[in-house]
Amino acid sequence: MQTKLALALIAALAASSAFAAAKEQRVTKSAAEVLKDSPNADWRALDPENTLLMNLPQGQVVIELAPRFAPKLTANIRALARASYFDGLAVIRVQENYVTQWGDPDEDDAKARPVPDGIKGAKEFSIPLKGLPLNKLHETDGWAPLNGFVDGFPVAADPKAGRAWLAHCYSTVGVARGNEPDSGNGSGLYVAIGQSPRALENNIAAVGRVIKGMELLGSLPRGTGNLGFYEKPEQRTAITSIKLAADLPEAERPKLQVLRTDSKTWGELLEARRHRSGWYIKSPERTDLCSGTVPTRPTP
Amino acid sequence: MQTKLALALIAALAASSAFAAAKEQRVTKSAAEVLKDSPNADWRALDPENTLLMNLPQGQVVIELAPRFAPKLTANIRALARASYFDGLAVIRVQENYVTQWGDPDEDDAKARPVPDGIKGAKEFSIPLKGLPLNKLHETDGWAPLNGFVDGFPVAADPKAGRAWLAHCYSTVGVARGNEPDSGNGSGLYVAIGQSPRALENNIAAVGRVIKGMELLGSLPRGTGNLGFYEKPEQRTAITSIKLAADLPEAERPKLQVLRTDSKTWGELLEARRHRSGWYIKSPERTDLCSGTVPTRPTP
Repeated sequence: MQTKLALALIAALAASSAFAAAKEQRVTKSAAEVLKDSPNADWRALDPENTLLMNLPQGQVVIELAPRFAPKLTANIRALARASYFDGLAVIRVQENYVTQWGDPDEDDAKARPVPDGIKGAKEFSIPLKGLPLNKLHETDGWAPLNGFVDGFPVAADPKAGRAWLAHCYSTVGVARGNEPDSGNGSGLYVAIGQSPRALENNIAAVGRVIKGMELLGSLPRGTGNLGFYEKPEQRTAITSIKLAADLPEAERPKLQVLRTDSKTWGELLEARRHRSGWYIKSPERTDLCSGTVPTRPTP
Repeated sequence: MQTKLALALIAALAASSAFAAAKEQRVTKSAAEVLKDSPNADWRALDPENTLLMNLPQGQVVIELAPRFAPKLTANIRALARASYFDGLAVIRVQENYVTQWGDPDEDDAKARPVPDGIKGAKEFSIPLKGLPLNKLHETDGWAPLNGFVDGFPVAADPKAGRAWLAHCYSTVGVARGNEPDSGNGSGLYVAIGQSPRALENNIAAVGRVIKGMELLGSLPRGTGNLGFYEKPEQRTAITSIKLAADLPEAERPKLQVLRTDSKTWGELLEARRHRSGWYIKSPERTDLCSGTVPTRPTP
């Protein structure tokens, strides 16, 4: 069967150059080779002011905030974390093939935890496309006329409307909102855990992405209530704390780097994802916005 | 915040007709309304010969096989289930944002469980497009020139090559294989658990989809070994049994129906997914192959 070996090859997106040449396919480095050969300058440190650490009993989730796309809401989230707002709250909802959501289980009740002064809702669904350093992906996916990456985040855009927005890919973090477009204030957050829910774009604010620990939020038991809400309080996962890295001593901050999406390595990685050989008998000759996760690595 | 309410609206893809009309948007039934109003004739029973029941300690997973797309491999899987091949084997691998795989943990070793006589590997990656009753989706997604649904399964096709194949969407079940294209025999199976891994298409055989219990396979702890393999045997989830519904007394078969994808209701459901109002302030005016899960319901 050789399944283990074969799947090793699948996952590494492996391309044996010799084999590729023999088949007269395009010779391209594998994704693993591209990353191994990448210069340190193609990686960047995390900005502690934009790094959210969500501590769960299962482990730590690291979220990178994208203030460029939601300046008010990311400022709210920073302020909420600094006020220890999330500590002791919970994951309240896990809906299969959709979202994991956390915040105040009592938010709609009299028992709701008050948010600090100055935290107001905001409608930050898109920003001007003009001037945005969009590293364009030549593949479109039908959900937007233009797409690519900015600062390590997947971004979709509509040149006619002159707008751009953080795409709702697997692992994108957004701000839950009520019926009013500006009702989300950052006190309730969610992450996409299944097929990328692109229909949400321009309807809700995306504020960042999970760059580590996504497996913790994706493997929680699904809630059995309507929309995946947990029916009993004891089914919820408690949030030990959500802290901003900037508020922690340097030694307690995550030692992670993110690949720069304006780097040569990123371009090569996309090429490796497009052109596959070895185990692959038919190279897809394609990638897309939500398949192309931006890698992180431990700081060397 | 009204988050619970708001998310209720998101998940139901709800469209209040009155509200939509007020906004001069297209008035379309919501997905929930479409399903509620659907005639019984638009639903079909499961064929017991194509219904696989995977019993895990966490509950039951129901898989519908698609023999049209992989006649030899689905016959193998039936024979393996009938021989109780899978009973006592395990989920051996869960790779984040990729696949959950099950089969014989010892398949590469001397301890491998022997497969019954006559079970041979097959390369069933695509079938002729000609004559296929493809209910076309007008949206393409860039991964294939043509796509749509056949018998309730998502299907992609290439008219130039004259071939069609079961698409690798979230919840698609496939046959693990080794380096040789015909090395997969059905004794090792996987299901896609994250962003749909479309690059696998035409490289591996898809044989069906999970129609119930997907949340069980999607929420297993990710393996910490290479490619998500579990490093310790005790981390694996044991498979109590995998049985064919046809081999069970009628009372023990799942009482489920699948929406016919050649029905009026299916067309209306796709329209409801395209045109969203109510909570949505910008209707996506679009769906796609892997977003449009085909519904099941308890047999009325």
